[in-house]
Amino acid sequence: MSFESMWAELEPVGRSERSGGYRRFAWSRADQDLREWFAAESARRGLDLTEDRMGNQWAWWGDPDEAVRAGDPGVVTGSHLDSVPDGGAFDGPLGVVSAFSAVDALQDKGFRPQRPIGVVNFVDEEGARFGVACAGSRVITGAMTARRARGLTDADGTTMAEALRAAGRDPHEIGRDDETLARVGAFVELHVEQGRALVDLGEPVALGTDIWPHGRWRLDFPGEANHAGTTRLEDRHDAMLGFAGAVLAAREAATTHGCVATVGKVAVTPGGVNAIPSAVTGWLDARGASPRAVRRAVADVRSMVEQVGGVVTEESWTPSTPFDASLGARLRTLLGDVPVLGTGAGHDAGILANAGVPTAMLFVRNPTGVSHSPREHAELPDCLEGVAALTAVLEDLAGGRSPRAGGRA
Amino acid sequence: MSFESMWAELEPVGRSERSGGYRRFAWSRADQDLREWFAAESARRGLDLTEDRMGNQWAWWGDPDEAVRAGDPGVVTGSHLDSVPDGGAFDGPLGVVSAFSAVDALQDKGFRPQRPIGVVNFVDEEGARFGVACAGSRVITGAMTARRARGLTDADGTTMAEALRAAGRDPHEIGRDDETLARVGAFVELHVEQGRALVDLGEPVALGTDIWPHGRWRLDFPGEANHAGTTRLEDRHDAMLGFAGAVLAAREAATTHGCVATVGKVAVTPGGVNAIPSAVTGWLDARGASPRAVRRAVADVRSMVEQVGGVVTEESWTPSTPFDASLGARLRTLLGDVPVLGTGAGHDAGILANAGVPTAMLFVRNPTGVSHSPREHAELPDCLEGVAALTAVLEDLAGGRSPRAGGRA
Repeated sequence: MSFESMWAELEPVGRSERSGGYRRFAWSRADQDLREWFAAESARRGLDLTEDRMGNQWAWWGDPDEAVRAGDPGVVTGSHLDSVPDGGAFDGPLGVVSAFSAVDALQDKGFRPQRPIGVVNFVDEEGARFGVACAGSRVITGAMTARRARGLTDADGTTMAEALRAAGRDPHEIGRDDETLARVGAFVELHVEQGRALVDLGEPVALGTDIWPHGRWRLDFPGEANHAGTTRLEDRHDAMLGFAGAVLAAREAATTHGCVATVGKVAVTPGGVNAIPSAVTGWLDARGASPRAVRRAVADVRSMVEQVGGVVTEESWTPSTPFDASLGARLRTLLGDVPVLGTGAGHDAGILANAGVPTAMLFVRNPTGVSHSPREHAELPDCLEGVAALTAVLEDLAGGRSPRAGGRA
Repeated sequence: MSFESMWAELEPVGRSERSGGYRRFAWSRADQDLREWFAAESARRGLDLTEDRMGNQWAWWGDPDEAVRAGDPGVVTGSHLDSVPDGGAFDGPLGVVSAFSAVDALQDKGFRPQRPIGVVNFVDEEGARFGVACAGSRVITGAMTARRARGLTDADGTTMAEALRAAGRDPHEIGRDDETLARVGAFVELHVEQGRALVDLGEPVALGTDIWPHGRWRLDFPGEANHAGTTRLEDRHDAMLGFAGAVLAAREAATTHGCVATVGKVAVTPGGVNAIPSAVTGWLDARGASPRAVRRAVADVRSMVEQVGGVVTEESWTPSTPFDASLGARLRTLLGDVPVLGTGAGHDAGILANAGVPTAMLFVRNPTGVSHSPREHAELPDCLEGVAALTAVLEDLAGGRSPRAGGRA
């Protein structure tokens, strides 16, 4: 099963005919198809498939528990298969397909791992349906409680508990899973680059250094419902005006403080063309290399929102996540001084790093620099460079010195 | 069946437990219940119920076709029973319930109409579901073609044709209905006031003079989908920024030119918290006493929207609609110099007036001045004053000199 044929198999799953983008949301039909694909690829290679308490899929080459007992746990790679609404084909799947391809390369050359190699498919990485990114890794590491996860709702008001049940799962089984985490001696996630740095550098592959601090804030603007034709301007309390001001204030604050800020989602009540909005809720996403810059930008937005009687609620905040320094140094030597990049995107790798797992990332060049869009792309030769790099990394980490030796775990 | 008991029967239909507001959308289950209520009230009074080619319900006291043959067609009152999302109880139903109450008063006193009296329930007045207000009267007068009506879509992408079919109707039967219109010698619509003029004047009832010019415009902003965390501000093409600018520009333009402008509805693509919007569509509602002022305000908004690469599309424009002058004068004399008011709200009365039907309106005081909201209200004594005024009007128009005598029809 070559890289190209795996890619071709995934291509139609969950793709919208209208937009050409992917709609692979957690616990949907498309997601179920992707999980079945993962299980089949795992079986094809003779890997042992397990699921943890959140339904993340783990395909093991070798016995992960024996390795835990020996005090030298396995090496895991992989990513996720879900997508944002109308997302691209590469964000997530490139890491999973590259992981299977790297296993193929090792099996083809008769490699015998000294410690087990795992391939993981994390569920609900994008948080597209329930609003919290990396839900799969957050729950098993305890970064999000099972109770909070169960109560998250999608746009139709369906809770994650209901979605789990509809997918044939028991929502009361989900939770922190230390047994699964103990099996992960190191985690290396390969991902398409979500910017233009490798294009500018003329390089196909980079090593990730850290994930920028990032957060999400809900902005609630109150108003008073009234008729759009008969209410004098001076009698109005129009929630949309505060929202519009906040969108512009967020961009200005990001420019001022040197970070990025986005308002990508809004909900209007009642939402009629001829009704003055009685409530508008917007969501602010802000990130940057410096946590202080992000905090200052959000403080500027908060001040503007509160001036018009609105309320800002922090829905999530993830501090700067540096990846494991000694693991990073080892990979950089191994890969021959590839470029190193920080990233503004959150990843399951960041959640695992925060849980104490020695973690690294590899990025593959994206010629458009565009992400979360059907235009997101990577050329096949670059993908194969990524697979080669990942193969070398797995061979080294699973075959040589334990990745935990000298690591921070 | 008193005013109060009819009111009590309607109260629970289509009311949201959460918001306390009404969600009585065209061709929904709630709408069907309201239509059955209308049919039952009509039967209770011995009126003959008919439906026209758009499904508007007409309950006749006397034979409307005999009157047409005699060259002296009937007198119609009534309004609509649908609502905006989370609307109030009075906008529409007050006119229908008052119409039945006025018929009761005339029947009780043994009145024998010289020309028939009709009570009408227009469908889809608010345009809440398919975006075009007064769809029921627009279609039968030919102000909107059947083809356009069938192709209108709701938020779920359901066309009006599909909604009609789901309600057991044949969408190919809808269309202009001159036979129905010929029966309407005069139309008098009673409505709750959607502002504070009668509160300020200390009067319970007013006579309507005209409907302000009003229109709806769709504002489409293009952007490029991209990742909210990894795309530099200078590389972004964020559709939300243009939208936010237009919301503020619309308010400023309305203030400058002396009219009202509202953006009450917005749709964002893809709509993810961590995705830069690739497209945002907003809807602008603008009205005012002067068509020139409204046109100037919209031109200001258009200029701003086009500057950021957006497109403005006029979805509807209804010029100033003066009601029939001689009918208005006759009613004013009859009602003893009640206040006269123009209104920024569109009504089926305006559509019929534009189609050449002699038309008038009565407004009943609304102590909150609020409309399209659960806070919309009228006190019972004011409602009964409205019924008394409407009873006097019907008695005069159906009993005395033909309303078309001296009218413009």
